[in-house]
Amino acid sequence: MSGKISFASDYAEGAHPAIIANLERTNFLKTAGYGTDEFSESARRKIRAACAAPDAEIYFLVGGTQTNAVVIGAMLKSYEGVIAADSGHVSLHEAGAIELGGHKVLTLPNRAGKITAEDVAAFADNFHADGNRDHMVAPGMVYISQPTEYGTLYTLDELKALRGVCTNKNLRLYVDGARLAYGLAASDNDVTLADLAELSDAFYIGGTKCGAYFGETVVLRKGLIPHFFTIIKQRGALLAKGRILGVQFDTLFTDDLYLKIGRRAIEAASRIRAELKALGYELFLDAPTNQIFVVLNDAQLAALAERVEFSFWEKLSADRTVIRLATSWATADADVDKLLDELRRLR
Amino acid sequence: MSGKISFASDYAEGAHPAIIANLERTNFLKTAGYGTDEFSESARRKIRAACAAPDAEIYFLVGGTQTNAVVIGAMLKSYEGVIAADSGHVSLHEAGAIELGGHKVLTLPNRAGKITAEDVAAFADNFHADGNRDHMVAPGMVYISQPTEYGTLYTLDELKALRGVCTNKNLRLYVDGARLAYGLAASDNDVTLADLAELSDAFYIGGTKCGAYFGETVVLRKGLIPHFFTIIKQRGALLAKGRILGVQFDTLFTDDLYLKIGRRAIEAASRIRAELKALGYELFLDAPTNQIFVVLNDAQLAALAERVEFSFWEKLSADRTVIRLATSWATADADVDKLLDELRRLR
Amino acid sequence: MSGKISFASDYAEGAHPAIIANLERTNFLKTAGYGTDEFSESARRKIRAACAAPDAEIYFLVGGTQTNAVVIGAMLKSYEGVIAADSGHVSLHEAGAIELGGHKVLTLPNRAGKITAEDVAAFADNFHADGNRDHMVAPGMVYISQPTEYGTLYTLDELKALRGVCTNKNLRLYVDGARLAYGLAASDNDVTLADLAELSDAFYIGGTKCGAYFGETVVLRKGLIPHFFTIIKQRGALLAKGRILGVQFDTLFTDDLYLKIGRRAIEAASRIRAELKALGYELFLDAPTNQIFVVLNDAQLAALAERVEFSFWEKLSADRTVIRLATSWATADADVDKLLDELRRLR
Amino acid sequence: MSGKISFASDYAEGAHPAIIANLERTNFLKTAGYGTDEFSESARRKIRAACAAPDAEIYFLVGGTQTNAVVIGAMLKSYEGVIAADSGHVSLHEAGAIELGGHKVLTLPNRAGKITAEDVAAFADNFHADGNRDHMVAPGMVYISQPTEYGTLYTLDELKALRGVCTNKNLRLYVDGARLAYGLAASDNDVTLADLAELSDAFYIGGTKCGAYFGETVVLRKGLIPHFFTIIKQRGALLAKGRILGVQFDTLFTDDLYLKIGRRAIEAASRIRAELKALGYELFLDAPTNQIFVVLNDAQLAALAERVEFSFWEKLSADRTVIRLATSWATADADVDKLLDELRRLR
Repeated sequence: MSGKISFASDYAEGAHPAIIANLERTNFLKTAGYGTDEFSESARRKIRAACAAPDAEIYFLVGGTQTNAVVIGAMLKSYEGVIAADSGHVSLHEAGAIELGGHKVLTLPNRAGKITAEDVAAFADNFHADGNRDHMVAPGMVYISQPTEYGTLYTLDELKALRGVCTNKNLRLYVDGARLAYGLAASDNDVTLADLAELSDAFYIGGTKCGAYFGETVVLRKGLIPHFFTIIKQRGALLAKGRILGVQFDTLFTDDLYLKIGRRAIEAASRIRAELKALGYELFLDAPTNQIFVVLNDAQLAALAERVEFSFWEKLSADRTVIRLATSWATADADVDKLLDELRRLR
Repeated sequence: MSGKISFASDYAEGAHPAIIANLERTNFLKTAGYGTDEFSESARRKIRAACAAPDAEIYFLVGGTQTNAVVIGAMLKSYEGVIAADSGHVSLHEAGAIELGGHKVLTLPNRAGKITAEDVAAFADNFHADGNRDHMVAPGMVYISQPTEYGTLYTLDELKALRGVCTNKNLRLYVDGARLAYGLAASDNDVTLADLAELSDAFYIGGTKCGAYFGETVVLRKGLIPHFFTIIKQRGALLAKGRILGVQFDTLFTDDLYLKIGRRAIEAASRIRAELKALGYELFLDAPTNQIFVVLNDAQLAALAERVEFSFWEKLSADRTVIRLATSWATADADVDKLLDELRRLR
Repeated sequence: MSGKISFASDYAEGAHPAIIANLERTNFLKTAGYGTDEFSESARRKIRAACAAPDAEIYFLVGGTQTNAVVIGAMLKSYEGVIAADSGHVSLHEAGAIELGGHKVLTLPNRAGKITAEDVAAFADNFHADGNRDHMVAPGMVYISQPTEYGTLYTLDELKALRGVCTNKNLRLYVDGARLAYGLAASDNDVTLADLAELSDAFYIGGTKCGAYFGETVVLRKGLIPHFFTIIKQRGALLAKGRILGVQFDTLFTDDLYLKIGRRAIEAASRIRAELKALGYELFLDAPTNQIFVVLNDAQLAALAERVEFSFWEKLSADRTVIRLATSWATADADVDKLLDELRRLR
Repeated sequence: MSGKISFASDYAEGAHPAIIANLERTNFLKTAGYGTDEFSESARRKIRAACAAPDAEIYFLVGGTQTNAVVIGAMLKSYEGVIAADSGHVSLHEAGAIELGGHKVLTLPNRAGKITAEDVAAFADNFHADGNRDHMVAPGMVYISQPTEYGTLYTLDELKALRGVCTNKNLRLYVDGARLAYGLAASDNDVTLADLAELSDAFYIGGTKCGAYFGETVVLRKGLIPHFFTIIKQRGALLAKGRILGVQFDTLFTDDLYLKIGRRAIEAASRIRAELKALGYELFLDAPTNQIFVVLNDAQLAALAERVEFSFWEKLSADRTVIRLATSWATADADVDKLLDELRRLR
């Protein structure tokens, strides 16, 4: 509310109007608590269908860090750790939530935000070959994000390769889908919800950054975590009025709203990316989703900051800085127009 | 949505219409995340004013169990436990969230849901007199709920006495206000928000059961928990779109809405209670807030269950059962009328 | 080293001379670490034989609180708690070690230090019948001590009944044998090591209070806790020079030394107990092992304290105090003589 | 006990004969438990004197991983992590004990086992400059080992530089001295016990690898960790018969035994190192303490393994392997002679 146009994040607004409408419409119906209501049940049915996973267990949690901490904590045995990219959200930006739960994050160097099946296999092999392995943290699962924190995407082949390694090395595979709508809608994406449900042991469908007020849906292989309801409660992650999550996800999975939300953001991002390239700006990396990482010089940086909100990402060298521009389901075409004007002006 | 009228809980509906309106009105304004937005700031100002506590720190969390676990975990040193009534929410119905955080709940027998300053003092004295105290869990704080899980209220004198004991015994005092609106509005209540802010080290103002979609506001003595923001994040309790909490509590603390919400529930409960007494029903205990505990015989129980949803509480004897009827800000007068008709019919 | 004779505890001296001799004899032999040495292997074989449990897993840990915390933490699922007597060591005198590991101790009222199969069954039944059970800590195991903290013993029938309840209610059964030698040697004991191995899921054979410098041996049902070695390491409970534990327990289980150690303490305790009864002293309870709980008046208390070290236990009333006298494998006959003289004098 | 001579580790034997003698001599004296005995008090006085730290708090724990977990867990606030070399014992070989306690190990690349003040300062500066720092694990302390896991030593200047950074960046400094005797005795060492006591907030004096049956002594800045006794108990690290630790460390700090123990190992290591150099073997790094890291080709490796026990360290390339030879206080001159013969033969 600074007067500037903002591309600072994808959680800057409230909820999609269809969600607001459904929450209001159902407001005075009385339901049972804790996700046992009919809206939550309806959302579960629709999500199972969208994932082609009729047996999957579906749980609604509140936020991303919480979901990662609860699922990872419940999946790991006490002596196990989770393999993740060093750029992963669980590695860097969750204030030690995984460690608070008692587990080590075993980091691999990221390759444009991703980790490879080869690196995971080598890590597991090294562990098992180490004579001191019984004095070390055993790798128990793999965490990836789709899209990654750098906006990149795993291909279906890469995902299958990771699944193969996980199966061979007795690791579970978990996918953080905080921005999943923007991955599903990317033009060169070939990984569907059904692929994720088939290939991972658990993944979550992000709501907070993809049209909801808040909320993340965990899709869990049936029977994998007994008493997961109580585990969620014990970790303070069980919403009393579970219906609020149920109505939101029921709306998102009605009439393909979740995919439509993704597409809007991708269209806006694609326009920006195309113009940046046409204007000769340097992209830090070429990611196909709703986050754009551009390199600016100091003059551009200062000038852009007067009119546009964005995220500082990292300092590359004395005069070069990476910034992030994020679009979302709520990005207005007029704001994109203004941004492009600025970018042209600064060139 | 069973066709029956429902007095099963005080979190059966969505949010107060004023909250819905304000969320919709502000929906497309872009704000920063994590509670640093202007709606959250506005709510903080209003709550500080309502509490006559200009220096208090104000944090918005999502749910009650979460709030208890985060505040208690942050307040206690590793070797300390929390004193609570054996009927307290933290003692019984949080699936071990306090213990998951590493702390013992040191239970005292409840007296109509409350604990006394005398019992707390005796517990602390016994601990300090015990030659084995260095091998025992030290009492570090006191947890009470206002209203209690039985709907009863601490008087101002009782609260002052607890504060005195806590000061003398070097204990912190924390108040769970999940249903605080219904306590503030009770006719014989003499404990204000300002009293709670003055006498406790932290308390929370319940939103989930008092008109919000969800949310609890922690009012914390300034400086008591350094880096509490990061602690909230680490425990998965930081809402990315903090504005959703900010708008809700800003609304609840505008034009005394929080108190009005409380009053509606109390009026409904008072009508029910008066009629129960007039009809000669046995009240399990005489609590002044929005929860009514009635003793029914088996015939009454079966008959009422056909028309009304309520909570089973406990079996008193072969033929006598305690049930709970709960009213809320959303209880319709027509539903109270129907309930009273039923109660008359069963007498 | 006060000049007084001491019956203050059963860990007041060093180790049995046979242990000292064997440690010295083997001192310069080089072995592998962490309990993989031949002394530890030999001790394991002898203990399996003594327990008639050829498949049992045997682990050597350092101390009692540590052993309880490691075994209980490894046996419980995250959402489970451990049932124990309110007088149990884990309930009272381990400074919250179980809770630090994330688990609630679910206390039952003790009956002379013991809990009954009926009380355990009722607790489990109440839990499973409670509509809120998914919001509560599930009972996952039962902790008992043999002998108990009050020196009493479970009979074989009582132990079988507990085993039956545990099997029926899907609870694991764990026995703390910190003073097991003194239980095995008691005249009216009918529970053998083989019974413990058969009826419990895990138990430990106490060394610290029964002739060793330190050390406790866990006897664990095969396969019950995968990767228990790493769990022990992770909890800081793995002794680098595991041989020191191995040599000690190898000695204790050679030529029935463990039983002989128990018998010496029981003989001393029996002499004291018989004389106390003959002199008309009031026993607080009549326990058959190495701890004697006597009620003294203030004059007796003061007079005895001038010549004898003992443990204050609890104040019964204005003028009556319970003290504990403990014997051990190292109790000298001459000291018993002196104690009896004092007791006669004060009568 | 394989018939081979062994340089596999420095904890392959029992205890120094002087310790055995003192344990035996004091065996039947009765003392209070938990380190409150007179032997422990005497050891504390001598250690304070050796450290020129009359106010230091002295605690005796059982093992190294345990000591690291207890001290680090007690020193850190819940949202803090510990900076350590990626080769540090806490980073690699404690099975996740630090994470089990809720804390992240923040690794820096090791430089011959050490970390530099510059790297620590840069890490802290980057953290404080990061706009997301409140969502990240805050560095709270620095862990180093002296000698390191590679046998190298911090110089006094390096230690002072680390202290300076820690003071400037509000970090505590903790030194793991598992092999401290061998550092103190190294010919080019210039860091004394008094330096460690002055410059660190806590350090531990290793007993297990330096002549004791077991045991590590924590030297702690006065008042830094309130209720540390109870914290030790809660973590299962309090030895009931604390005297066993007291007698051992009292012995080690009588007549400079601890330094003499260090010197014996250093003399043996120096002989081996000199001969390796003279023979033209490649040292992996040139560390001055009791661990020697040599590069062997496959033929040498196989031949040596037939006569000598050693530790495999890492594979450098197809035909080159690093092994570790460790000496200790108990290394026999005759065994060194035999080893040197072998090394000459294989050249």
